[in-house]
Amino acid sequence: MNDLAKLKKDLDGLEVEDNPQIVKQKSRDFFWYSPVLKRQLDHVTADLVVTPKSEEEVIQVLKACFAHDVPVTTRGAGTGNYGQAMPLSGGVVLNLAALNEVLEISPGVVRAQAGAIMAAIDEAARPGGQELRMHPSTYRTATVGGFIAGGSGGVGSINWGGLRDLGNIISLKVATMEAEPRILHMKGEDLHKVSHAYGTNGIILEVEVPLTAAYDWVDVIVGFDEFMDGVHFADALANQDGILTKEIAPVAAPVPHDYFLRHQKYLRKGQSVVLLMVAPFAMDAFLAFASRFRAASICYRSDVGRPEERKGLPPVYELAWNHTTLRGLRVDPTITYLQVLYPFPDYVEKVGRMTRLLGDEVPGHLEFVRFDGKITCFGLPIVRYTSEERLNEIIRLHEDHGCPIFNPHRYTLEEGGMKQTDAVQLAFKREADPKGLLNPGKMIAWEDPDFDFSAQKTYLFPGLAR
Amino acid sequence: MNDLAKLKKDLDGLEVEDNPQIVKQKSRDFFWYSPVLKRQLDHVTADLVVTPKSEEEVIQVLKACFAHDVPVTTRGAGTGNYGQAMPLSGGVVLNLAALNEVLEISPGVVRAQAGAIMAAIDEAARPGGQELRMHPSTYRTATVGGFIAGGSGGVGSINWGGLRDLGNIISLKVATMEAEPRILHMKGEDLHKVSHAYGTNGIILEVEVPLTAAYDWVDVIVGFDEFMDGVHFADALANQDGILTKEIAPVAAPVPHDYFLRHQKYLRKGQSVVLLMVAPFAMDAFLAFASRFRAASICYRSDVGRPEERKGLPPVYELAWNHTTLRGLRVDPTITYLQVLYPFPDYVEKVGRMTRLLGDEVPGHLEFVRFDGKITCFGLPIVRYTSEERLNEIIRLHEDHGCPIFNPHRYTLEEGGMKQTDAVQLAFKREADPKGLLNPGKMIAWEDPDFDFSAQKTYLFPGLAR
Repeated sequence: MNDLAKLKKDLDGLEVEDNPQIVKQKSRDFFWYSPVLKRQLDHVTADLVVTPKSEEEVIQVLKACFAHDVPVTTRGAGTGNYGQAMPLSGGVVLNLAALNEVLEISPGVVRAQAGAIMAAIDEAARPGGQELRMHPSTYRTATVGGFIAGGSGGVGSINWGGLRDLGNIISLKVATMEAEPRILHMKGEDLHKVSHAYGTNGIILEVEVPLTAAYDWVDVIVGFDEFMDGVHFADALANQDGILTKEIAPVAAPVPHDYFLRHQKYLRKGQSVVLLMVAPFAMDAFLAFASRFRAASICYRSDVGRPEERKGLPPVYELAWNHTTLRGLRVDPTITYLQVLYPFPDYVEKVGRMTRLLGDEVPGHLEFVRFDGKITCFGLPIVRYTSEERLNEIIRLHEDHGCPIFNPHRYTLEEGGMKQTDAVQLAFKREADPKGLLNPGKMIAWEDPDFDFSAQKTYLFPGLAR
Repeated sequence: MNDLAKLKKDLDGLEVEDNPQIVKQKSRDFFWYSPVLKRQLDHVTADLVVTPKSEEEVIQVLKACFAHDVPVTTRGAGTGNYGQAMPLSGGVVLNLAALNEVLEISPGVVRAQAGAIMAAIDEAARPGGQELRMHPSTYRTATVGGFIAGGSGGVGSINWGGLRDLGNIISLKVATMEAEPRILHMKGEDLHKVSHAYGTNGIILEVEVPLTAAYDWVDVIVGFDEFMDGVHFADALANQDGILTKEIAPVAAPVPHDYFLRHQKYLRKGQSVVLLMVAPFAMDAFLAFASRFRAASICYRSDVGRPEERKGLPPVYELAWNHTTLRGLRVDPTITYLQVLYPFPDYVEKVGRMTRLLGDEVPGHLEFVRFDGKITCFGLPIVRYTSEERLNEIIRLHEDHGCPIFNPHRYTLEEGGMKQTDAVQLAFKREADPKGLLNPGKMIAWEDPDFDFSAQKTYLFPGLAR
């Protein structure tokens, strides 16, 4: 009996999938946003997918995999797009989709199992007038545990910053990968150990996150002839302290008309837009603000007109964040994108410079956010992809102009992030995953402690199964 | 029959007070914060106080006063401290205290009569999990109409900016002072016409303002040996996007120990503090944040310890904003205060410079706020008053160092504010109060169009009755 057969025996009674086609499908995320990751990871698959129904079953899986030295890669809904949830060395995909209970809601707080869908959490919170502070554009499918393990911010970050900020996660319940897995309760500074660690050093079982006031947000699209007019408008609006918005995203022509197909009737070809979610009671103030800008014309408002006209339109947040690129890919599968930080205080100027420099090869897409107390913007520009070489050149151009890139064409934590070892996460991996079985290949600091981040070389995980 | 007798006849059936002692009492506000205003305004009194019970009765008062050319000065709770509500030319004080109904609450919005007490509005909103965005430290006595007519911001401005910001007032219902008073409904840009106009150009009857999520805010006092350590702490906390607070106010020694008598047992002599209101679910994150600062020690938390120990303690917001000075005046009636803006981005440096320059003559008190999208701070420093000359010198010193003063020792809109004509408010006064009967002497632009603001002379209203 080989290890896998022995493992299966230990998993008796659990929901285990070994049909290769289904296993492969559950071993993938949205990595194909990147032509680079598509080339590197397309073949990746686990041996088994296990779907535990309870914490006890999760512990059973971890104990069995530890005993047989089988890697475990945790999966939420698989909506990440850096291969976070892809099992580079095979083994088990631990699918937490069935741990989806919303456990407790109180003023300002929700406690839920890691596999709870974010929209489902809001559905449970909304009768009490509450909703999550922030969510990705994959709100209707993504799990809260996956967001914390692999996301950074999203819709709502204009008010609350990112997941890395103290206060945006209250506590986490985490299982370790040991002979006898421990259950840890983390809060405060400890949260950094496992949040945004791709499940490399612990299994998030339960999350406690803050809620804020829920409103029937009004979707608004404002049109501009010039992208930079839209950027200035968005920046001024983001700095209005009294006008409550949840989303402010300028998108350069030709993206809106060409890629937002279901909204196309509201958009002119060649028109740039700013995508907005505005609190309903802030609409009068917003309209007063907007009328100060001659260049701004309101193309679409979800709070006026006949409801049947709006039927079939996706919410505006499904045009924004990573959905902008997704809609682009549906029209033109050759495109890809980047992730840029335009640092405060001259972020608008930097956007202008990169826009002039790269033109239609890199149509702009910005997301305004709070970052260390200031308004600034992230970029998720579309890239008309020609080659990896040119893509790296575009990355270098951004960095040469003071705009750091969080590279979405890399599957490791470090290369997609700060390009340096995270000592806290590494130390916790030593403690919680001594055999290195959790999501192998994603934390360079563990796999290759001598890796030189300054050498500008891509890390290639030697354990990447072929 | 003189004019007053004729007026009284026209007011038949209304609640009219003409007992001189009571009238004088209802003709005053907290103007005595300022030794300058105390000298100028101590004798001021109306002839009558009228307390209408309905909008119809307000209109009746306005019509009668218009007919007999009697000035009308509107009063909420009289908690302003620039003489806003004081009838410089006598006449009628229009007391709106009886127009105090909370009319309608919906998600994000409350509509109330102008005389509604702010704490009473919150009491009505809280069962639905909502509360006002901001309030003055006189929350438990001040009216919402008075706050809009004479205030600028307060507790909560750290999240929402000030009343001047679009979106912090949704709409106002206003009566004009004409032969046939009109009822106007204002929103958007129009709101600026009458908000912070001291009732000089219309009578605010009803307000619609936004609500936000209500929490059982935790009062926290953090102690520091050095005031500037507290300022840096407060600034860093204010720039934490994920930690929800409602109030962040550093106060320099010896003010906390010497003036916060009911909290004295928690404070050391010579200790500076930062006063805080923190969301209960943000306490773990706040404590993690605070432990990064060696100089910070938590002196007081309202969420721990025995309830009987906390009995009799005022809420922290009643140590902050204008209550800091009020508590000082109760201990040492010779002090007064100033209102300073330390502009972004070098506000902390400017605070340090003024602190070194003025020492214990002007003990620091800051209120962190959002201002045009950035965190910065207002100062309400205590001033150990010696003479008007020295007070003016201290003002000049601030302005010479790039810190504008909003002078609380002046009773006019302009001198307490931007030191220039507000063309919008003036134009609206021409339209809505053609006889100039509303709160005479408070709008220089109306009384003396040729007044030279650059001449640094105090405006003296010639109509100030003696």
